[in-house]
Amino acid sequence: MTMQEKGNISIHTENIFPIIKKFLYSDHEIFLRELVSNAVDASQKIKRLAAIGEYAGELGELKVKVAFDKEAKTITISDAGLGMTADEIKKYINQIAFSGATEFVEKYKDKGDEKAIIGHFGLGFYSAFMVAERVDIISQSYQENTQPVKWTCDGSTEFEITEATREGRGTDIVLHVAEDSVEFLEEFRIKQVLDKYCKFLPIEIEFQEKVINNPTPIWAKSPSDLTDEDYLKFYEELYPYSEKPLFWIHLNVDYPFNLTGILYFPKVKNELQLSREKIQLYSRQVFITDEVKDVVPEFLMLLHGVIDSPDIPLNVSRSFLQADGNVKKINSYITKKVADKLGELFKADRVGFEEKFDNIGLFVKYGMISDDKFYERAKDYCLFQNVDNKFFTLNEYAEFVQENQTDKDGNVTYLYASDVKGQDGFIQSAKKRGYDVLKLDTVLDNHFINMLESKLVKTNLKRVDADTIEKLIDKGIAVDTILSDSEKETVKKVFEEVINDTTKVVNLEAMPADEMPALITQNEFMRRMSDMSRMGGGGMGMFGAMPNNYIVSVNANHSSISKILHTADAEEQKKLAKQIYDLALLAQNMLTGADLTAFIQRTAVNL
Amino acid sequence: MTMQEKGNISIHTENIFPIIKKFLYSDHEIFLRELVSNAVDASQKIKRLAAIGEYAGELGELKVKVAFDKEAKTITISDAGLGMTADEIKKYINQIAFSGATEFVEKYKDKGDEKAIIGHFGLGFYSAFMVAERVDIISQSYQENTQPVKWTCDGSTEFEITEATREGRGTDIVLHVAEDSVEFLEEFRIKQVLDKYCKFLPIEIEFQEKVINNPTPIWAKSPSDLTDEDYLKFYEELYPYSEKPLFWIHLNVDYPFNLTGILYFPKVKNELQLSREKIQLYSRQVFITDEVKDVVPEFLMLLHGVIDSPDIPLNVSRSFLQADGNVKKINSYITKKVADKLGELFKADRVGFEEKFDNIGLFVKYGMISDDKFYERAKDYCLFQNVDNKFFTLNEYAEFVQENQTDKDGNVTYLYASDVKGQDGFIQSAKKRGYDVLKLDTVLDNHFINMLESKLVKTNLKRVDADTIEKLIDKGIAVDTILSDSEKETVKKVFEEVINDTTKVVNLEAMPADEMPALITQNEFMRRMSDMSRMGGGGMGMFGAMPNNYIVSVNANHSSISKILHTADAEEQKKLAKQIYDLALLAQNMLTGADLTAFIQRTAVNL
Repeated sequence: MTMQEKGNISIHTENIFPIIKKFLYSDHEIFLRELVSNAVDASQKIKRLAAIGEYAGELGELKVKVAFDKEAKTITISDAGLGMTADEIKKYINQIAFSGATEFVEKYKDKGDEKAIIGHFGLGFYSAFMVAERVDIISQSYQENTQPVKWTCDGSTEFEITEATREGRGTDIVLHVAEDSVEFLEEFRIKQVLDKYCKFLPIEIEFQEKVINNPTPIWAKSPSDLTDEDYLKFYEELYPYSEKPLFWIHLNVDYPFNLTGILYFPKVKNELQLSREKIQLYSRQVFITDEVKDVVPEFLMLLHGVIDSPDIPLNVSRSFLQADGNVKKINSYITKKVADKLGELFKADRVGFEEKFDNIGLFVKYGMISDDKFYERAKDYCLFQNVDNKFFTLNEYAEFVQENQTDKDGNVTYLYASDVKGQDGFIQSAKKRGYDVLKLDTVLDNHFINMLESKLVKTNLKRVDADTIEKLIDKGIAVDTILSDSEKETVKKVFEEVINDTTKVVNLEAMPADEMPALITQNEFMRRMSDMSRMGGGGMGMFGAMPNNYIVSVNANHSSISKILHTADAEEQKKLAKQIYDLALLAQNMLTGADLTAFIQRTAVNL
Repeated sequence: MTMQEKGNISIHTENIFPIIKKFLYSDHEIFLRELVSNAVDASQKIKRLAAIGEYAGELGELKVKVAFDKEAKTITISDAGLGMTADEIKKYINQIAFSGATEFVEKYKDKGDEKAIIGHFGLGFYSAFMVAERVDIISQSYQENTQPVKWTCDGSTEFEITEATREGRGTDIVLHVAEDSVEFLEEFRIKQVLDKYCKFLPIEIEFQEKVINNPTPIWAKSPSDLTDEDYLKFYEELYPYSEKPLFWIHLNVDYPFNLTGILYFPKVKNELQLSREKIQLYSRQVFITDEVKDVVPEFLMLLHGVIDSPDIPLNVSRSFLQADGNVKKINSYITKKVADKLGELFKADRVGFEEKFDNIGLFVKYGMISDDKFYERAKDYCLFQNVDNKFFTLNEYAEFVQENQTDKDGNVTYLYASDVKGQDGFIQSAKKRGYDVLKLDTVLDNHFINMLESKLVKTNLKRVDADTIEKLIDKGIAVDTILSDSEKETVKKVFEEVINDTTKVVNLEAMPADEMPALITQNEFMRRMSDMSRMGGGGMGMFGAMPNNYIVSVNANHSSISKILHTADAEEQKKLAKQIYDLALLAQNMLTGADLTAFIQRTAVNL
């Protein structure tokens, strides 16, 4: 006997029902979104039927009403939509996932059609049981000569249908709220959930005798019908009490995917201030989430605003989302739109662009670092700002410093300050030479600098305190020193004895007499390595952070150094060297603690 | 005609099946955990049957084997467990959620019983279809005289069962991997997933001819059978290349919930270094997640280690988890265990405890701030450390400073430094008075200070630079001043002219002659307010951060101040006042930028 058998896999309803009820949504409050969306859906359908002549009755007021009764422990959602007959209830409500899956399969067959995500899986209605111990549906179909009906179910798989009465067309969903969900019987709580999910639903929603939503948000309108005022007002509606945004982009695309939305550039000065949860994702005006990771390129998550697209798969896993073709297309569409908008602004009003660059710069640099396509678009309008707050495009700057900042090997060095105040002494030195110093002081600038060096030809960037002024840009012109080699050696020994620190190397340098008697510098490359090890290592790994190593450049031509040589008393020599070293430390903000206190007290005594 | 009808809600399998397949788990890699766990489960069951005499055959080697064939695009999971007959396959596989829901309902009826989470909802097997386009099951039951069978299904709801051949008892699951999941046909990827989820499964798992798991992890053993070596070795196994932990707690409870685990205290010095995803959650040795938020009290998420409990509800929403009675009990059990362990350590070896307090302090303070019950347990061993690195319990410290730091109204003031180096001048001043200064310099200490003030009686805390030394602790002893009121007024005007800054108020103070000529202080209360506004406001809201306001206390009794009065030349007066003010700024690390450069240059010229 050979066995061969075919059959169908079945699901036991009574077993999977509790799972659907309790675990389908991670937030129980979603029930209100689902039920109000269904009501809106039913209202829009009757409108459409009337529009195409399939419904001849009065449309009347189509408001969806949300009410609650704390005594009776009920929440009621009422609409004047299509309504359902007993047969329709049996078809749509009693057979879970009927409507849903049909649409679901269609969705992946044919993308062009208008399909509501509302009730997407046909499971939306059952979310009511996340908070209710019993649910009643009272419904009157729009079809003539139909009987109003009441469906009731206590959360088991058994239901009951009876005749009912209802004034006119539509559906009431009555939730008998369970003991563990009484939080939803509070006015503020219902208002909170409605505000979160239903703020822009396309049919008026009434709660406590007020309409709580804006059924025609501006993203759904045509840009040509909108004024700046409209955009600013909408921003205020989204983020009350925020500073005005700098500008905005109206997104509107039909093909190959459907997406509308408005992205605002907020006023922000550094990345840390930024909230990354300021873009709200909608699907046909139903709020879905404010976690837009993977839908929006990472560097644009700093923007604010709304995106509405029925083409972003919902309720799916992250890895699935990342691989989704539409999501990838949406990503590059948004990137291109933002890059183009910035280019337009730059061309139309350079002065205005410069004024806003403090805020814009963060996006532009972040984008250039993380997206090569964006770099190509943005390199023409990305701006450098120098310590005197003059602005240059990358090309303008290359030309500006070419003559004076090219070294003997033909390489150009851009100088920058990461802390304009803290590096003031070094900046003043560079300026005396006619060098320009850029301000690159944001958290992003380390990465931005590395990226620039990889793109620019024969150009490197050095922090203004990376070396003595002569060596920062080595033009091959040697400065003479007035000291002999043995004198240098003597001075070096005095300093080494005073400093007594293995992380600091003493060098006697031939510097102009009017420079400082000593400087503390840190090699550019070594500093970057040590910055990197500190940021990456986190101190938890096997390897500690690389130590900071410094060079103490003693100015062989400074009068105070000659004074050390001409002092016979070793203690006096050390006292002088100590004071010179303390001043060098001060200039680098490295004189601290008891050393600083002693320096201050020494100085105060001599006032 | 009155309608009344009862019926049953049904689920359309063909509609919900794609949802289960694609959307049930957010990570597709989970399929391997589910299938290997099922195999382990079948292996343990045959062991149990043998143990109770219901299976008389040879147990043999019970290894679960994972293999893959890149050419054939298959992954095979084989066990020598119970096996299934054709009827059992029909019962357990073809009827989704059968086993699951039964257990599910039971679970909430009766908590004491041993129930496997493996295949919890009976849906685990179907996770295979997240990555496979076809799945075969080849199985031979342990029961005598049964026919090996092959079940095959291509992801539709149709299946086919045929006769098969198999060497001995057990089950092979063969996945025919779909095009979009070929990533799982790589050795490193399979190894990675096995390492993540199956590292401690209780039956040996073989992959590429190596056993990849440790079937008897130490948390499942009795603490009395374990040495320190065992615990340290296990830590190394969990976190290779990490620094040794400070100590650990073995958790072991049977009632009213079942939980085992080991929590390690890592060596860390500040909160920012800490990873909060270092505790792994297991259920019967199956890895579930490293997001233990809500299971472990927030302040203990800084710990490392494992927790294993079948009583934590899985795959459920966060709000549900927070409300779960078991989770609440687990939370307070862990808190109590940690508090008790710390108390034991303190009693057993105070010196060792002090040495570790740099690391422990963070947990202790965090716990005291966030949990009143923990505060009550920890207040006896929480330590203060002063700037000289001496340790005190809260009670010891109260006694230590009582005599010298009580003001004229009988209130005790604890002085603290938030930056021992930066506040060195002020610390030295306080020490000269015999005052003690605490080191409270971690991110947590602001909250810790506020919490302490709310608990301690007649005690307040002041930062050491909150006022001049006389006024920090006002003992009602006035210091005389050598200046007349009009002289004071003259000096004040000179300083105000030099400072020219509305955020700084100049006060002439009667201070000892050997204190600094001027000090910059900031009122404790105002500073806390302004710190809070900065941390809370974020700069994005309607209100900006509160400005920092300072007091410049000029020492009326300092010789340099007399000098100002005795200098006729107004420019000289200003020069002197400027130097005094600059030194005061320096002592607060507030002399920066061009002002600092000018100060350094002025000083360098006079060397």
